[in-house]
Amino acid sequence: MSEIKEIITELIKFRDKRDWEQFHNPKDLAVALNIEAGELLENFLWKSHEEANKDKVKEELADVFAYAFLLAEKYNFDVKEIVLEKIKKNGEKYPIDKAKGTAKKYNEL
Amino acid sequence: MSEIKEIITELIKFRDKRDWEQFHNPKDLAVALNIEAGELLENFLWKSHEEANKDKVKEELADVFAYAFLLAEKYNFDVKEIVLEKIKKNGEKYPIDKAKGTAKKYNEL
Amino acid sequence: MSEIKEIITELIKFRDKRDWEQFHNPKDLAVALNIEAGELLENFLWKSHEEANKDKVKEELADVFAYAFLLAEKYNFDVKEIVLEKIKKNGEKYPIDKAKGTAKKYNEL
Amino acid sequence: MSEIKEIITELIKFRDKRDWEQFHNPKDLAVALNIEAGELLENFLWKSHEEANKDKVKEELADVFAYAFLLAEKYNFDVKEIVLEKIKKNGEKYPIDKAKGTAKKYNEL
Repeated sequence: MSEIKEIITELIKFRDKRDWEQFHNPKDLAVALNIEAGELLENFLWKSHEEANKDKVKEELADVFAYAFLLAEKYNFDVKEIVLEKIKKNGEKYPIDKAKGTAKKYNEL
Repeated sequence: MSEIKEIITELIKFRDKRDWEQFHNPKDLAVALNIEAGELLENFLWKSHEEANKDKVKEELADVFAYAFLLAEKYNFDVKEIVLEKIKKNGEKYPIDKAKGTAKKYNEL
Repeated sequence: MSEIKEIITELIKFRDKRDWEQFHNPKDLAVALNIEAGELLENFLWKSHEEANKDKVKEELADVFAYAFLLAEKYNFDVKEIVLEKIKKNGEKYPIDKAKGTAKKYNEL
Repeated sequence: MSEIKEIITELIKFRDKRDWEQFHNPKDLAVALNIEAGELLENFLWKSHEEANKDKVKEELADVFAYAFLLAEKYNFDVKEIVLEKIKKNGEKYPIDKAKGTAKKYNEL
């Protein structure tokens, strides 16, 4: 079993033992992901990134991944496939010769 | 090479070809993750989850994963390890007998 | 009519001309607010605050306010009253002698 | 003094008593706003809007307003003015005859 499948299997096991699938529709999973992303971000509030607490970042990032994997599972997305596809698409939006060394958005390049 | 390592390798390659590491400090990566999580959520706004456009969900979820993986890489986190650790921790916050079938938060169980 | 009532009146007028009240339930308004907060934040991504485009910040902040006011209206909250109440409550969580000059969260003071 | 000026005056007083202006740069204020928007949204997670706790919604919405007002103040934006301007602009993006009764985004109308 691939690594990502293993992670998802554990997440599903956790969910099903608690009978939580009834709550996990894609919209609420996306809402949950946003909330966790906010909690992750809170570790950097009013400070530079060096001052963030690494252990807390770890826990909140794990929560972000959990909901991202659960959402991918809901739609039967292959995580590796969709990320590689998006990298390819972004490569067209951000051609190297224009995007190199600049943080500008693609519509401002 | 593991699946997740492969994904991260491709993300780093994309980043380095554009000389973007200078922008990718953990705080801004967490900011980027929040922005993408918001764009993902936009696909569900004013509608039920059945009405969401699956292809757009796919692309935005891929962006969320991209920044989550890049952030994990910054801290040298092993994604599988941190998610499994968090599942264990959540198992203590949400014991099955109390949490089964309810969407309540752990501090309200 | 008070300033805030005036703003809300205009927002409601805009909404009702388009027959959008049917979509504006509190959950989706909170979702919309999150999306707009993310778009606001995008103006600061990969850069310091001095580099943000003031006109874009203005527009996105206006959207944040629009949904915040619409949500307040849904619940019949008086904006001034709820903010002043929260300031009072935060004053107890952050007593001056402990909180002065530090960015720590109340549970770490 | 107008209602909004009054609110902002109280927020500034609270901030300055704690010597917090040093942390309140626009980027971190936008980050804080996102975090609070996430906490507001948490009240609607896994449930319909009728089930949300009104008192908690009130407190989190107050926090959202607090950071939105503080950000407006940083840029010397007049809140009423920027919201009315945005309503006007949105009126062009969403003409009544096309937008009436539909939740579609302007680029899909």
